[in-house]
Amino acid sequence: MDPVIAANGDLAWMLAAFALVLLMFPGLAFYYGGMVGARNVLNVMTMVLSTLGITSVLYVLYGYGLVSGDSIGGGFIGNPVDYLGLQGFQADDGSGTTQGVYFAAWFILFAAITIAIVASGAAGRMKFTAWLVFAPIWLTLVYFPLAHWVFSADGEDGFQGGFLLNDIKIHDYAGGTAVHMNSGVAALALAVAIGARKRRVERPHNVPMALLGGGILWFGWFGFNGSCALGANFLAQFVILNTLLAGSAGMIGFCIIERFREGHVTSLGLMTGAIAGLVGITPSANAMSPLGALGVGVLAGAAVAFLLSLKGKVKVDDALDAFAVHGVGGIVGTFCIVLFASESAPAGVRGVLLGGDWEILWRELAGILITCTFSFVMTYLIAKAIDKTMGLRVDDDTEMGGLDPVIHAESAYEIPAAGVGHGGLTSASANKLATMGAEPEKAATT
Amino acid sequence: MDPVIAANGDLAWMLAAFALVLLMFPGLAFYYGGMVGARNVLNVMTMVLSTLGITSVLYVLYGYGLVSGDSIGGGFIGNPVDYLGLQGFQADDGSGTTQGVYFAAWFILFAAITIAIVASGAAGRMKFTAWLVFAPIWLTLVYFPLAHWVFSADGEDGFQGGFLLNDIKIHDYAGGTAVHMNSGVAALALAVAIGARKRRVERPHNVPMALLGGGILWFGWFGFNGSCALGANFLAQFVILNTLLAGSAGMIGFCIIERFREGHVTSLGLMTGAIAGLVGITPSANAMSPLGALGVGVLAGAAVAFLLSLKGKVKVDDALDAFAVHGVGGIVGTFCIVLFASESAPAGVRGVLLGGDWEILWRELAGILITCTFSFVMTYLIAKAIDKTMGLRVDDDTEMGGLDPVIHAESAYEIPAAGVGHGGLTSASANKLATMGAEPEKAATT
Amino acid sequence: MDPVIAANGDLAWMLAAFALVLLMFPGLAFYYGGMVGARNVLNVMTMVLSTLGITSVLYVLYGYGLVSGDSIGGGFIGNPVDYLGLQGFQADDGSGTTQGVYFAAWFILFAAITIAIVASGAAGRMKFTAWLVFAPIWLTLVYFPLAHWVFSADGEDGFQGGFLLNDIKIHDYAGGTAVHMNSGVAALALAVAIGARKRRVERPHNVPMALLGGGILWFGWFGFNGSCALGANFLAQFVILNTLLAGSAGMIGFCIIERFREGHVTSLGLMTGAIAGLVGITPSANAMSPLGALGVGVLAGAAVAFLLSLKGKVKVDDALDAFAVHGVGGIVGTFCIVLFASESAPAGVRGVLLGGDWEILWRELAGILITCTFSFVMTYLIAKAIDKTMGLRVDDDTEMGGLDPVIHAESAYEIPAAGVGHGGLTSASANKLATMGAEPEKAATT
Repeated sequence: MDPVIAANGDLAWMLAAFALVLLMFPGLAFYYGGMVGARNVLNVMTMVLSTLGITSVLYVLYGYGLVSGDSIGGGFIGNPVDYLGLQGFQADDGSGTTQGVYFAAWFILFAAITIAIVASGAAGRMKFTAWLVFAPIWLTLVYFPLAHWVFSADGEDGFQGGFLLNDIKIHDYAGGTAVHMNSGVAALALAVAIGARKRRVERPHNVPMALLGGGILWFGWFGFNGSCALGANFLAQFVILNTLLAGSAGMIGFCIIERFREGHVTSLGLMTGAIAGLVGITPSANAMSPLGALGVGVLAGAAVAFLLSLKGKVKVDDALDAFAVHGVGGIVGTFCIVLFASESAPAGVRGVLLGGDWEILWRELAGILITCTFSFVMTYLIAKAIDKTMGLRVDDDTEMGGLDPVIHAESAYEIPAAGVGHGGLTSASANKLATMGAEPEKAATT
Repeated sequence: MDPVIAANGDLAWMLAAFALVLLMFPGLAFYYGGMVGARNVLNVMTMVLSTLGITSVLYVLYGYGLVSGDSIGGGFIGNPVDYLGLQGFQADDGSGTTQGVYFAAWFILFAAITIAIVASGAAGRMKFTAWLVFAPIWLTLVYFPLAHWVFSADGEDGFQGGFLLNDIKIHDYAGGTAVHMNSGVAALALAVAIGARKRRVERPHNVPMALLGGGILWFGWFGFNGSCALGANFLAQFVILNTLLAGSAGMIGFCIIERFREGHVTSLGLMTGAIAGLVGITPSANAMSPLGALGVGVLAGAAVAFLLSLKGKVKVDDALDAFAVHGVGGIVGTFCIVLFASESAPAGVRGVLLGGDWEILWRELAGILITCTFSFVMTYLIAKAIDKTMGLRVDDDTEMGGLDPVIHAESAYEIPAAGVGHGGLTSASANKLATMGAEPEKAATT
Repeated sequence: MDPVIAANGDLAWMLAAFALVLLMFPGLAFYYGGMVGARNVLNVMTMVLSTLGITSVLYVLYGYGLVSGDSIGGGFIGNPVDYLGLQGFQADDGSGTTQGVYFAAWFILFAAITIAIVASGAAGRMKFTAWLVFAPIWLTLVYFPLAHWVFSADGEDGFQGGFLLNDIKIHDYAGGTAVHMNSGVAALALAVAIGARKRRVERPHNVPMALLGGGILWFGWFGFNGSCALGANFLAQFVILNTLLAGSAGMIGFCIIERFREGHVTSLGLMTGAIAGLVGITPSANAMSPLGALGVGVLAGAAVAFLLSLKGKVKVDDALDAFAVHGVGGIVGTFCIVLFASESAPAGVRGVLLGGDWEILWRELAGILITCTFSFVMTYLIAKAIDKTMGLRVDDDTEMGGLDPVIHAESAYEIPAAGVGHGGLTSASANKLATMGAEPEKAATT
């Protein structure tokens, strides 16, 4: 189709996809919030939501330039002064389609969701002030360079993009490296730097909340992966199907392993598996056949489940499993490209099991190693530097009492318990309740 | 407008609509989860969410062929080998608009949401393993044939579709038969086969959760009904308005009946009415005037409310009212077409009250009877067959203890009760709370 | 781009945006529901959700005419008989883009969300029957005229629109006046008329719920502001970025003030700040540079936080702070246009600090004063009239017992408390739980 004709429909999809990705923030906050204890839920939600504020300011100031500006240092970092204040984006270039002003908003969300995942590594024990210092430094020194390496393509007139994409030529459809491996590994490094929680085995305080959060993440993922097609085109449809299939199959892979190792299937396992499958398909969505997408999901889900079943034996306390889900999930998805990418899929990559060239293995391996090493080392150094100066961790008393009441002066819930909550009712309401035809679950609680 | 020009904008809307429908899964899980007891919430959410995993695999293997393949047996079932593995969908056909790869993803969601509604009939008492056997068999033997009958249109070159659509020519805009009547009736049959819950009168454990779930369903319904216009066209706009009006009026119809029969208006009634109105407009959205859409909503809401007010007199325990809401709601909506469809609406059907031909009555009646009979009989037989072999129902001890802890080894909540939860606070947090300027609701709880 | 070519993509975005705005209703219900006490949550959610039912009926009957009909009385009100029953919208005009049938649905949501915000002023103490009388009267006498004044543009063939837009020429991009100032001021007037709650200092009963609701509102806001661009065009992208930036910066503005005045940063403050920023950018989204949008957010968030810190000194009990957030937020956003609108932005308005003409100050001031005065006086009169006849407020016994059980015969939760909920488990489930490897948080509760 004529690109001019397509322009407007492309933009329509990109606008909708943007909104989907925005909803991932309350989704992630709910997902993580439901998994922590009832006295830390607001703290972790605040950490997640605060990333939008922090990232927006940085991006307007110099983040857009660092990620998308003309490379300085041979593909290492974009020029921060290229887009200072985003002033140049106020004028319509007349193309009728997605322009810089859109990409600014879109990239802010990609950056913010990455640092939001990192937050989970420190759940339940990090000073909020330390977080407010850590987050902008981490974005500047870790995310912005990595995003430049992977997201910035070489352009016309000698415009130079990032070296992982243009020189090493890694295949990463929608952010398996800069978003998922990066955030998973950084969460791990942060968890190592800050140390384990005092009360490490903590049952999720609100599982339905976590399930809704996960479901919202899945919804948003269609915007995330779908918008990387940059329009309403064949690729977008293709990616939508594969994203659905991999998430669905992720459930299956996780549950099979969980059933065999733990003896039951949990609702949280089902959702964790779906997220693992979604992470796995993020780098590979444009390269897999539908059957391949099912394979990516099953393998990513199973790998994450297996890893989590070993969790008790590891001393590092990656509280909400970001490394397993995002780090390992992303690595599994990338290896799936190497193994069984389908040449008929839009990306046209053939996996080695289907007769493809082994060269892709080295390229992907380089991408994984560079991303993970850079992310781990830098994150650990930043965290330790903050620890030595202002301190990274709350005191023991605060940790045992819960971060919500001490740090934020809030408590998440004021809900009367079942069967004991009617004592204070006035006679009018008690009478009314008595006529409702339904007694509290007395059979269960007495 | 030139179809080539329209292609791209059409796809943009279809992509967004797809994502909306995906969110119906966590929405439905929340809606149902909030309505059951606190020890069965995760079980019902797991049943709902698991449908995505099960349906995705079946659809890739042979489901797409059974629903959309060239008919074998004279419009009775599609050819399962037509789309094995969906391999043919990897190549762009160059049309620039919605292609097979999209419809595969879209149809998976339609199938999965149908079986997810069926799950509700067995809430709180079905073995999870039995569910994992029941669901794929039911999809294969009940949903795929019915979907073929209703959704597969005859095509060029002698391509033969389903007999309800092409021979009996029922009017069913977006799935009143294959999705709603089918799921409602099947939930009823499953409830009959499995028997009533031991503790049948169970108050919803989390009404706000159910309300949010219902609200998300409404949101997703715009994707569901809107995408059946197959593009960003006049029909899509028309359907959006009618979907809004019928849901809104469903609230009113339900609440009027509830007020007169029960003496009050409940929040859950309001939402149930909205869902009933949405079900009612699903088959009729392209055939009603705006005033007619209000009528559909009021009638569907009122009919469901009336039926639920008789619930105590019926022995069948359709735990979450799927038959009333989806079965009866769908039937009412279909009869509204017969009665007062507006010839000016896009479908161009004139209801008999407005001088239309009575012939439409027989066609719709045939559609309703065939759908409901087939669904009930087949579902009952499948459920009974499973019951005789592996067993359908958990033992009494499990049912009374709750399915979450016994089957899934999870409990939904670890939330301290209001007014009693501060005992364990450390002194730091207790002091902090004391300065927050707000005491717990002591007046009410002591 | 050729308008015919653009038509279809424009509609695709408008359809998606519509759905986003619909989700604001459960979002607002959750936002408000989480902030009230556990025995009033269903009441406030019912008030919010009921607005869809009430508004839909009115709009089909005469609302569309009052807002968008040809002016009678010199721009004061539209002709109510222009669109009776919306019958004229059933036929496609062949334009291939957004038509009257869409705008009907869209305007219903704008009207309903406005009255839904007004509901918050009476949270926890209004008769539900009084609400069902108040809401349609208020829509008819307050919202419909104001919406006509601001949203109805003069047209061809002598078609006359509203006087604020066409004569006074206020700049209000997406409803700072008719939606936000109007609802905020009306909530205040309703709070004055009904009097303060007996138990005024009530801790939010479910903060995560409020945070999710707020996050959903933000998501919907992209549909709200984005759809006011009327298509998938440059303006839509521009507005999306500014909406993101202002919400993000609103967090920052609020938290800075909260930190200095209260000594901590709360999660609810973070979200309140985001909403304040979103309100601020609603009238100004097309007129601000990206840096300006950050400024709007910071100022709106800070202003609202400052106002709320004075709350204890005011006798009026605007229970959920609608006046501060929507009223003051809207006013701040409007003044930001006057002060530092960027001439390079699509609206082409230059703020006085950047050398613009002071004339804009008088126009915006007139808009603010007319809107706020009209809204306050009319709302107060309507509320008082209802108070004198049928009574506005529930009796003391009902208020202290909670509106959910007495008015709606429902209770929101039946959730066993942490650590005490396992007493009733059967031995099977107790054994199972004991093997889960995770004890309840005993350290904290014993």
